[in-house]
Amino acid sequence: MSTSDRLVIRSRFRDYEVTFVEDFSTILASRTEHGFFIVDKVVMELYRPRLQSLLPAGRTLLVEATERQKTLEHCQGLIGTLIESNIRKHHRLVALGGGVIQDITAFIASILFRGVQWSFFPTTLLAQADSCVGSKSSLNLGKYKNLLGTFYPPSQIWIDVGFLQTLPADEIKSGIGEILHFYLVDGNERISSLMDNYDEHLKNPRGLHEHIRTALEIKKKTVELDEFDQHQRNLFNYGHTFGHAIETVSGYRIRHGQAVTMGMDIANYVSCERGYLPKATFVALHQILAKNMPVLSLDSICLDDYFTALSKDKKNVSSHLTCILTSGPGSMKKAEIPLDDDLKDILSAYIRTYGAPCVSVATASAPSASGHGQ
Amino acid sequence: MSTSDRLVIRSRFRDYEVTFVEDFSTILASRTEHGFFIVDKVVMELYRPRLQSLLPAGRTLLVEATERQKTLEHCQGLIGTLIESNIRKHHRLVALGGGVIQDITAFIASILFRGVQWSFFPTTLLAQADSCVGSKSSLNLGKYKNLLGTFYPPSQIWIDVGFLQTLPADEIKSGIGEILHFYLVDGNERISSLMDNYDEHLKNPRGLHEHIRTALEIKKKTVELDEFDQHQRNLFNYGHTFGHAIETVSGYRIRHGQAVTMGMDIANYVSCERGYLPKATFVALHQILAKNMPVLSLDSICLDDYFTALSKDKKNVSSHLTCILTSGPGSMKKAEIPLDDDLKDILSAYIRTYGAPCVSVATASAPSASGHGQ
Repeated sequence: MSTSDRLVIRSRFRDYEVTFVEDFSTILASRTEHGFFIVDKVVMELYRPRLQSLLPAGRTLLVEATERQKTLEHCQGLIGTLIESNIRKHHRLVALGGGVIQDITAFIASILFRGVQWSFFPTTLLAQADSCVGSKSSLNLGKYKNLLGTFYPPSQIWIDVGFLQTLPADEIKSGIGEILHFYLVDGNERISSLMDNYDEHLKNPRGLHEHIRTALEIKKKTVELDEFDQHQRNLFNYGHTFGHAIETVSGYRIRHGQAVTMGMDIANYVSCERGYLPKATFVALHQILAKNMPVLSLDSICLDDYFTALSKDKKNVSSHLTCILTSGPGSMKKAEIPLDDDLKDILSAYIRTYGAPCVSVATASAPSASGHGQ
Repeated sequence: MSTSDRLVIRSRFRDYEVTFVEDFSTILASRTEHGFFIVDKVVMELYRPRLQSLLPAGRTLLVEATERQKTLEHCQGLIGTLIESNIRKHHRLVALGGGVIQDITAFIASILFRGVQWSFFPTTLLAQADSCVGSKSSLNLGKYKNLLGTFYPPSQIWIDVGFLQTLPADEIKSGIGEILHFYLVDGNERISSLMDNYDEHLKNPRGLHEHIRTALEIKKKTVELDEFDQHQRNLFNYGHTFGHAIETVSGYRIRHGQAVTMGMDIANYVSCERGYLPKATFVALHQILAKNMPVLSLDSICLDDYFTALSKDKKNVSSHLTCILTSGPGSMKKAEIPLDDDLKDILSAYIRTYGAPCVSVATASAPSASGHGQ
């Protein structure tokens, strides 16, 4: 691998590296001595021939990568298993999987012995192009998604884009949604090359290598300035506030990155209606974003559900919605807008014109949360 | 209050302040608007006349300050109550109590919404002179004490030494043990004034004000350099490795700071036997430390239990004991010494000469973990 295929991220905890590798198994083989492995069951199934001989049986925990596993109880159970397997403070956790496996491993690493080091082999496009950098872990508490969590980066991240070839197309689209989001926040011109070759990327996701790298470079700039998400990093919520509510009303059948794609379109529409964004820019961006949206049809019942989901966003302060609006690519701003009838009218008009955010998904197949279909 | 009665601690998370105050209730009164309060039940009983009118009923959680409460399950229950009480990310936790209340509040604050701010009114000498600074939280997991935890400092610490007047004498002795420990690690000459007025401090603990301040200044210097306890801060384990094992074999009937006092004496003895510390220095220090040790009598059964407890210390690497040895006050060094018969012989000789570390405690009264007796 070339040295240019490496990013160093500065962190309040310790600087860490992202390295693109040709074959994850050669790296993994050199990490087994002090490692305890937390591995997505589906990834284990898909890559068993290469993994079985590498992962030490007594120090490998196979985890079902679903949201139901992202709880304190489940993490406590895994910690119990690690302790029984004689893990000590100088040992290291190694995560192999997507966002769920990352969340579980990072959370455990952040609280066990008040912190053990961990490494990460992200296997989904979302994890490779976004979540692997930025230090966040998230757990659910009862019905509240991602209510708990810590900041605790891995020491090393190894990206093998070969993993993307076993992902279903919807999962690639989800990852492309987050790459799109970084490109719009940054005002990055590579958005054309990403979307002009959209169909080709779905067929051959290895070709996303450079886009993954660029997305991480954009994220790096901001998380180095504001790792704890108190200032500039807030702008990455662009598309996310409106997108999370879409995930909620769809019962999480719409995948995260595609919900964010639609969330950005809604944020743009609201920005336009509030006079921040020229209509022509909204329309131009809508044409780009539409390519990556889930198939939808109109359903008027959705508006109330969607509005309720928005009003419960954890970042809200009292009766206002905290969200990111835009005056164009590269120009984002944090806003608190009243959760009132005006906003409802705007959302209603968006849904009438561009489709309801939560319909037809009942017929879509529910994704495996690991991202990896079998 | 004078501006000199304030310390600012630099932290990786955010800088924070320790302020000595004449009357905690005036400060508390100004903190109720965005506050959710986690309060030691015993402190509430002792200070009910002042607290009841200040603490908002719907946002005050009374917690029994025992080690049994320092679990993930209990924290999850408290978080559930906070959520039901509509806590949001911009709210703040306020802890009122000793180390157990600090551990619970800091841990919850560190994981709820991936971090909410918290303030602390420490009410025990241990919490005022030591644990309030340094960002650590600790939880127990099953039989393993302080196995889990995070680094997450409060935003503000308010010290009212008036709280010390309701502490039992043993609890003052425990706090003095930690102050002694900072003075020895630092080589600080104030150790004479502390120990020359030992009996007076037990009678009138308000007089410890300046010693609390000095202990925190010593701790500040090091935690600012090494907040995550990876390098220099390790030296504060002086007395703690040998002391924790004393706590363990006594079933936690010997209080922490007195166990640390004896732990320092044992560390000194081992240092002496291994040729690092002149015998005369050991003897001189023993005379100082002896004043603050628990009453003990010899019991030969103890050695094996003590050795076993030492060998299970979580900081050990394989068959070596990781501990801090000394060549005199202000001169500490990290050492890994074999857990072998040589060490056993040294410990046996110490016990024969200076008393067993775990006897006669069955007759001592078990401390309330809050520190505050009623």
